[in-house]
Amino acid sequence: MKRKAVNIKEKFTKFNDLWSPRIIAQVNNYQFKIARVKGDFTWHDHKETDEAFIVIDGELRIDFRDGSTTVRAGELLVVPKGIEHKPFAEKECRIMMVEPSGTVNTGDAGGDKTKLTEEWV
Amino acid sequence: MKRKAVNIKEKFTKFNDLWSPRIIAQVNNYQFKIARVKGDFTWHDHKETDEAFIVIDGELRIDFRDGSTTVRAGELLVVPKGIEHKPFAEKECRIMMVEPSGTVNTGDAGGDKTKLTEEWV
Repeated sequence: MKRKAVNIKEKFTKFNDLWSPRIIAQVNNYQFKIARVKGDFTWHDHKETDEAFIVIDGELRIDFRDGSTTVRAGELLVVPKGIEHKPFAEKECRIMMVEPSGTVNTGDAGGDKTKLTEEWV
Repeated sequence: MKRKAVNIKEKFTKFNDLWSPRIIAQVNNYQFKIARVKGDFTWHDHKETDEAFIVIDGELRIDFRDGSTTVRAGELLVVPKGIEHKPFAEKECRIMMVEPSGTVNTGDAGGDKTKLTEEWV
């Protein structure tokens, strides 16, 4: 069987829409998702799961109720389950997330950015 | 609470030994581990889990019984559970792995490179 490595940056050429994660790999029931983000996301938390953010390119600020953390290219931040957070990017930023399949991007906060990611690129 | 992003490359400055993964982050029971690798690893498989390899720097070849895949910096490869594989790097290469905590690096193949990673950096 031919196995091919996934080039993470190359996968970003497959789509242009913001806040719309695509799946690029899966380890058991955990998915690697990539997204282009810009501006403010929705305040939300995930009651059932932690969530890892890795910045591929650009700069992501994650606001918490008690402060904020800037995540730059090559950096990783895990948001623990149950902790409210709001991602923000001043300029377009490319990120990768690692979380269980079926994780809704806005938790149960809803809103017009809500997506259940099921599309692979 | 102050949350600090993890700079993946900076974490590699904390150790120099080969084939000796360190934990840098955890999402639920899944761990992000980094390792310096060079030369041949042991043929093995993981009966219970898939395993993601992301190359941070350099070039990793993963041999399978039916072929091999080269994974370069910025690329990712998931080795499915139960599939025998043998990582190899001609020159020293820096990698990140994502897998459940408690995953032994050589599966049940044993040998002198066997390690159960429990050390954080």
